[in-house]
Amino acid sequence: VPAFGVVDAVQANTVECAHTAPYYFFGKDETFAIDCAIPFGLNSRQMTAWMYDGNGLKLLREFYAKYSIVNFPMGNTGAQMGGWYRKEVKSLAEMKGLKMRIGGFGGKVLERLGSVPQNIPGGEIYAALEKGTIDATEWVGPYDDLKLGFNKVAPNYYYPGWWEGGPQLSLYVNTKAWESLPADFKAIVEAAASHAHVEMQARYDARNPVALKQLVAAGTKLHRFSKDVMDAAFKAAMDVYAELSAKNPNWKKVYDDYSAFRRDQNLWFRFAEAGFDDFMQQQKL
Amino acid sequence: VPAFGVVDAVQANTVECAHTAPYYFFGKDETFAIDCAIPFGLNSRQMTAWMYDGNGLKLLREFYAKYSIVNFPMGNTGAQMGGWYRKEVKSLAEMKGLKMRIGGFGGKVLERLGSVPQNIPGGEIYAALEKGTIDATEWVGPYDDLKLGFNKVAPNYYYPGWWEGGPQLSLYVNTKAWESLPADFKAIVEAAASHAHVEMQARYDARNPVALKQLVAAGTKLHRFSKDVMDAAFKAAMDVYAELSAKNPNWKKVYDDYSAFRRDQNLWFRFAEAGFDDFMQQQKL
Repeated sequence: VPAFGVVDAVQANTVECAHTAPYYFFGKDETFAIDCAIPFGLNSRQMTAWMYDGNGLKLLREFYAKYSIVNFPMGNTGAQMGGWYRKEVKSLAEMKGLKMRIGGFGGKVLERLGSVPQNIPGGEIYAALEKGTIDATEWVGPYDDLKLGFNKVAPNYYYPGWWEGGPQLSLYVNTKAWESLPADFKAIVEAAASHAHVEMQARYDARNPVALKQLVAAGTKLHRFSKDVMDAAFKAAMDVYAELSAKNPNWKKVYDDYSAFRRDQNLWFRFAEAGFDDFMQQQKL
Repeated sequence: VPAFGVVDAVQANTVECAHTAPYYFFGKDETFAIDCAIPFGLNSRQMTAWMYDGNGLKLLREFYAKYSIVNFPMGNTGAQMGGWYRKEVKSLAEMKGLKMRIGGFGGKVLERLGSVPQNIPGGEIYAALEKGTIDATEWVGPYDDLKLGFNKVAPNYYYPGWWEGGPQLSLYVNTKAWESLPADFKAIVEAAASHAHVEMQARYDARNPVALKQLVAAGTKLHRFSKDVMDAAFKAAMDVYAELSAKNPNWKKVYDDYSAFRRDQNLWFRFAEAGFDDFMQQQKL
């Protein structure tokens, strides 16, 4: 089954289940993206909280029922990096005309900054970046990016990946296949998905620092996106969401709950969590 | 089985398994505390990463084998709050002589600041705080603390709880009981523990913001610990760990790996994760 045929294949029961990044399917309905990552969305822990104890799973199950899919959270990468740039991008003005390979839903916001999002298969990105056919590419984070060697042709590595603050992967199971399982097998699938969910985030967290150090040792320059880029992107994202809420009732129903949850989460995380992390990140350890 | 008898009971197979906070047992060996929380330790995601993909589970399994216990991570509260204070504590000088109820391993560092850690059962804390027998108490975070009503007798709520940046709960299984299970049952226990692990953190994350808003609406005043308190506590904690490493080889073996992992984690988390969270926490959402 090709990457973009996953929803069709599970819906038709051609395959009984699949593991995927739901934002690939935002062309069918933008609501899919909320099950994975939208720009300036929930971070990894917040997304898991919304799914497991907020209304996330309930609302997305209702949405997926239209596609004969039962969904389970199954993995998260954590906040991604903002990608590799051949030249430094010092301000919003320099985002204009930038040809950038970007996956998923983030391109919809990036194009409002005047950039030109490009959809290029993974295997062809390195050559395009080396030749200058594109000016920049994003992929995931240090662990995955190091393997593809983008640092050799584009030394500027930006953060944070504001379009993927906590992208969640999902397990899709065809509704009939799911309903045919006895209760104990259902419980096993659910717990196994949780095990994979926590393990994937753990692997990225444990392996990214090692890869980051290798990248920096090899000459990679780390840059934080300038404030004007972040502010303009945030505003563009909120505009996109308001427009979607006006025209897509599926989006509106899920996003209304998601955005209220996001507001409360960021209110709370600034105290104990950020207070602890800020301090630890400033220490000589 | 009483709370402090859990290790003995599982070791003797009086109970085959238990769910507990391992730092209760630091009197037997300080190494137990590393499996839960030590001051200025790993945060929730970092602890999970160390257990699932670093050397954490392997090293702790070796340690627990001495007690005939097989351990599994099973829950985390996230960074806790720094507790409830009858009066404001504006500087390190004001920590001197402060009588504070504190659980677990944090008291060992708190007493080096001149405070007087008190061990008081949960049900008696409110009365002691109301009468002024103690000046302060820590418990968990907004969701749990609201239920106990500490805000009614001590309006000053400090953060972060630097002694519990990501306390992990553990499932203990008696070694013989574990070995008697067939492979499929072992896999079920492991995945079920992971499911509970992710669900507990999700519940705290989803419910803390709601409780925090209620506390603030009822007059609770939020304060960040002053920098001199944080710095002195950090230095005292590092002194305690150096002393333990010199005299307890079990501690040294596990802590050496834990502290190297903590250094790398905080190096990495300051970029994509903190860059994303900082920005989101500053927005009007």
